Amino acid sequence: MGILTGGGDCPGLNAVIRAAVLAGTQRHGMEFVGFLDGWRGVLEGDAVPLDEERVRPLLAVGGTVLGSSRTNPLADGVDEGVARVRKQLKALGVDALLAIGGEDTLGVATALHEAGVPVVGAPKTIDDDLSATDATFGFDTAVQTAVDACDRLVTTGASHHRAMIVEVMGRHAGWIALHTGMAAGAHVTLLPEEDVDLDEVAATVRAVLDRGQAPLIVVSEGAKVHGDEAVRNAPRDAFGHVQLGGAGEALEHEVVARVPGLSTRVTVLGHLLRGGTPSAADRILATRFGLSAVEALAAGDLGTMASLRGVDVVQVPLAEATGVLRTVPESRRAETAGLRW
Amino acid sequence: MGILTGGGDCPGLNAVIRAAVLAGTQRHGMEFVGFLDGWRGVLEGDAVPLDEERVRPLLAVGGTVLGSSRTNPLADGVDEGVARVRKQLKALGVDALLAIGGEDTLGVATALHEAGVPVVGAPKTIDDDLSATDATFGFDTAVQTAVDACDRLVTTGASHHRAMIVEVMGRHAGWIALHTGMAAGAHVTLLPEEDVDLDEVAATVRAVLDRGQAPLIVVSEGAKVHGDEAVRNAPRDAFGHVQLGGAGEALEHEVVARVPGLSTRVTVLGHLLRGGTPSAADRILATRFGLSAVEALAAGDLGTMASLRGVDVVQVPLAEATGVLRTVPESRRAETAGLRW
Amino acid sequence: MGILTGGGDCPGLNAVIRAAVLAGTQRHGMEFVGFLDGWRGVLEGDAVPLDEERVRPLLAVGGTVLGSSRTNPLADGVDEGVARVRKQLKALGVDALLAIGGEDTLGVATALHEAGVPVVGAPKTIDDDLSATDATFGFDTAVQTAVDACDRLVTTGASHHRAMIVEVMGRHAGWIALHTGMAAGAHVTLLPEEDVDLDEVAATVRAVLDRGQAPLIVVSEGAKVHGDEAVRNAPRDAFGHVQLGGAGEALEHEVVARVPGLSTRVTVLGHLLRGGTPSAADRILATRFGLSAVEALAAGDLGTMASLRGVDVVQVPLAEATGVLRTVPESRRAETAGLRW
Amino acid sequence: MGILTGGGDCPGLNAVIRAAVLAGTQRHGMEFVGFLDGWRGVLEGDAVPLDEERVRPLLAVGGTVLGSSRTNPLADGVDEGVARVRKQLKALGVDALLAIGGEDTLGVATALHEAGVPVVGAPKTIDDDLSATDATFGFDTAVQTAVDACDRLVTTGASHHRAMIVEVMGRHAGWIALHTGMAAGAHVTLLPEEDVDLDEVAATVRAVLDRGQAPLIVVSEGAKVHGDEAVRNAPRDAFGHVQLGGAGEALEHEVVARVPGLSTRVTVLGHLLRGGTPSAADRILATRFGLSAVEALAAGDLGTMASLRGVDVVQVPLAEATGVLRTVPESRRAETAGLRW
Repeated sequence: MGILTGGGDCPGLNAVIRAAVLAGTQRHGMEFVGFLDGWRGVLEGDAVPLDEERVRPLLAVGGTVLGSSRTNPLADGVDEGVARVRKQLKALGVDALLAIGGEDTLGVATALHEAGVPVVGAPKTIDDDLSATDATFGFDTAVQTAVDACDRLVTTGASHHRAMIVEVMGRHAGWIALHTGMAAGAHVTLLPEEDVDLDEVAATVRAVLDRGQAPLIVVSEGAKVHGDEAVRNAPRDAFGHVQLGGAGEALEHEVVARVPGLSTRVTVLGHLLRGGTPSAADRILATRFGLSAVEALAAGDLGTMASLRGVDVVQVPLAEATGVLRTVPESRRAETAGLRW
Repeated sequence: MGILTGGGDCPGLNAVIRAAVLAGTQRHGMEFVGFLDGWRGVLEGDAVPLDEERVRPLLAVGGTVLGSSRTNPLADGVDEGVARVRKQLKALGVDALLAIGGEDTLGVATALHEAGVPVVGAPKTIDDDLSATDATFGFDTAVQTAVDACDRLVTTGASHHRAMIVEVMGRHAGWIALHTGMAAGAHVTLLPEEDVDLDEVAATVRAVLDRGQAPLIVVSEGAKVHGDEAVRNAPRDAFGHVQLGGAGEALEHEVVARVPGLSTRVTVLGHLLRGGTPSAADRILATRFGLSAVEALAAGDLGTMASLRGVDVVQVPLAEATGVLRTVPESRRAETAGLRW
Repeated sequence: MGILTGGGDCPGLNAVIRAAVLAGTQRHGMEFVGFLDGWRGVLEGDAVPLDEERVRPLLAVGGTVLGSSRTNPLADGVDEGVARVRKQLKALGVDALLAIGGEDTLGVATALHEAGVPVVGAPKTIDDDLSATDATFGFDTAVQTAVDACDRLVTTGASHHRAMIVEVMGRHAGWIALHTGMAAGAHVTLLPEEDVDLDEVAATVRAVLDRGQAPLIVVSEGAKVHGDEAVRNAPRDAFGHVQLGGAGEALEHEVVARVPGLSTRVTVLGHLLRGGTPSAADRILATRFGLSAVEALAAGDLGTMASLRGVDVVQVPLAEATGVLRTVPESRRAETAGLRW
Repeated sequence: MGILTGGGDCPGLNAVIRAAVLAGTQRHGMEFVGFLDGWRGVLEGDAVPLDEERVRPLLAVGGTVLGSSRTNPLADGVDEGVARVRKQLKALGVDALLAIGGEDTLGVATALHEAGVPVVGAPKTIDDDLSATDATFGFDTAVQTAVDACDRLVTTGASHHRAMIVEVMGRHAGWIALHTGMAAGAHVTLLPEEDVDLDEVAATVRAVLDRGQAPLIVVSEGAKVHGDEAVRNAPRDAFGHVQLGGAGEALEHEVVARVPGLSTRVTVLGHLLRGGTPSAADRILATRFGLSAVEALAAGDLGTMASLRGVDVVQVPLAEATGVLRTVPESRRAETAGLRW
């Protein structure tokens, strides 16, 4: 069996690898190799053996020991890509693939499956925006890390009557911001799924200050916070490109313009949310995904992906995993809409 | 509206209170009082006002600011208890109750509902063993705390070639042990739901030592680990009562008896798992439960309880919450059965 | 007695306040008020009573409940400032001051002392750069927070063969960077105290990548990393001002220019390091400083400041605390100079 | 060069090993072996090579990868032991030893030095009770872990109006209890260095309850809490031995006997305090000790031990390290004596 991890990394990838290798080896006598750096390793036949001794210590290790990349094996055409993958698998004696990744990686896996390459998947996205599963590992850790940061920032904000703006990942789906904001008690949470009323944000900031608290604002990197004015006045680099900065910085400009005298600080959490040891919940979800995927491989339940449905981990068709992004629905936004935390 | 928290405390109770009071006040113009120490406060009319200013800082605060107790208002008979509760509510001008608690507290709430007292519930159990919801707040925090402890203990175990035994809560349901064991990479996990084969445990301990690792054993306080021999030879206190000690200690005796020369250490995590600031996931779940419960109160959807179903929080009949304990099913135990981690 | 906290906040300020108020009240029958927002509160007579009940819960609370500011009461002249302070203290019946702050706050305290105003101090600087004490509270927490962040970042760096650059506070003294780099295992640590050889940094980055690790670079905000080229080509804002960005971002440009194809990510920890609950060590140091300062007040040992000397907390003359910044000495840099971690 | 770790493990041992091997290899061209399980490995010639690749990942890893034991090579006589050590070092081509350990390990190292065996030391004791250094690594981590536990326990204590008793390590020196109690805001802290007035403890517990707080009591395992009554009435095991239980349990009995109706919970932190990744401060101290020891080896400054003096790490004679235990002095106890936290 071959295992690969593709796309941006997240906490729990190693836990999937560990569970799959241990269960596959012990229960089904499988042998494993790990392809390095996602599909690059497959295309170039760059693989390392994965045995029990190698994977045992990996449960709590962040990231992926296999490395990851955004190499797309189908970039030069599906048929050609499939043929190259098939050739390399044959050369290395690899019978089937476990592809751990997000939208892109699972899209390739789907194409391979449709072309008859034996493959199963495990979903991975820090943003928790895959349609086919209730949750993906890494998300819980990311939110906890973001909330820990907010818990720290609010105390210094309060000491200086200062609005703290925290930018988190989430270009298209605002799950990290929604959950971070809810768990950190943010007064304003801005998601890519919603239009932003900057005057309303400013009014909230003033109201929070008026009652003696320090405003906390959590903003997705993909939130629509750049005003027209900001775009016009943005600095430009040597090539004349607009240097807009991130959503956090843009929001700071807009809010300060509307609340004279406001002191603010922006913190961009960025890659901090991708790293580190997985939370207990993520270790469990990742382990269960690895176990489920390997049973699917053993049972010939190919073209499927591990998925959480309620409290159960089941295999669903790979094709379901891609295509439609799971964004924050109106019903979730309505839960907290208008509340003054 | 009156709010009370009953039974053993857990992280997230304050977050429910905060969300319910803020949303009830802001959206529905409700006014709240908090009864102190669970049903005791109701029976004795011991209540404090809960307004926005009071509850705002509570999101991250562990435990319950209302206090809790195991007082059962129906202990002297259902009719009498209901009458006393009704009288006190009337005296304080309380129209309806939000009861946050487990099996016992929600059982009382069910009886009150059936007798016509307006009540809604929010489920609380550190053990995550209520049937009517996919998850309860506090559980995630408890597991994370237990896993953090295990992560620490394995390094000292490994330095001394020592088996580390960690006893966690769970008298009847082994969820905490199951998830702690899975997330900490335990070599043996013992649940109340299963018979324990002490010889097999000992064999695993030997095998783990043989491959140069330090055995980690996670055991529910309710696991069946006391051998007959142990019971016979147990020390007795001044009154002649058998002093068996907890499951961890008992297990230590049994394993040491089977693995001569084995060095062991037992850690009983106990109440450590109940305390502290809730994890991000628990703050979110608790907040959503509080929001859902207050909407049910506003909508007159009485006799119901907030419940997680997949990714949705819905209200389910209170009666569903009690009666049948949600124990670890065979399917979950089968996921990892026989694996050598 | 009056207490004030001045300058940028840091974890432990509240612990000083708590210890001082409890010990002063219980041992010496003192009464306390807290001035709000540092010297602003003194100048404007803006104060709140501080009694045992108010301060008891403050040990673990980050920041300062008194608020802080950079108001300088001597800005319009020493004599005038001293007179205004003296007048306000008299009006409020405050006999003596406990000033908790850094270079600036303690400088004012020194001037007040020299003018005969009864005052003692407690040193506060997140940067640990005060000469008169072996350590200041807040620093340990800041370093731990930075190291936790680095521990997270290295796993995602390793997954993507990516250099991670972490910018920490420290405009003039590199203590936070030195200790963060040492505790996080950074391959390069850049301090304000040293000239930066960007070619050497690039060579180290290449060497680390060559041996299969992901480079970790910790850089003080005050490190000298802006090359001449960078300054010339920097984008400019609408007013023509150079937009150089922070040290982390500048370093990224320089390193990428020297290591073609290098993938990098910059994380600016900034105010994250100022916030949150103090570490155990900082709670202890802050508590001891508070206790020492209040004993000095009681004993009439005025014009002094709490200070750690070895394992002892002693009072030293306030004048010693200011004037000379405690920067990282050559001997400390030599400890690790040239080592390839 | 040979390295060994002896006695009970603590966080930071691996960091010493890493720093010593990297600096010794890179700066002085030394080659290293690690003896397994302390002096046992020396006596039996059981050693593994330690090179840069092996030690690089060890900075944040708790415990010791070399293993540890309490084997005393001088148990059969000093001369015979020295001879056996010398023979094994010669057989393995080991020129000098770096012994990392506490009282016992350093005592052996002293004897070896006096017999002419080239040896330097690094102090290790979780209890921070070595006279020759201001601090030892592992202690900061242990206290932080204990304080985190207390922070959790106080919230559940407060919810149930319950006294929480926390037992920490410290048989002869109460540093862990003193610092844990101070940083956790304990109402009572009991050290081995002091007589215990159980009636006073009970009075404090009552007073804390009366003002609406939950009492927190931190007790060293070596505190003198067993009353005569307790000893007389203690249960006995099958062999008639008194089963007194630990200090925490004993204290619980005594306090409950004096405060009727008091609800209590005891948590024994035990080995939890020895394990896990070292705190930032401990990683730094351990690294500096490793660097200092290896420079001493290189310079021929034998028979010395790394030691923290103020902010400096220096080498002091090994003989100073042993003999006199560094207990909590009267001056430190006086700092907080009688205060009602």
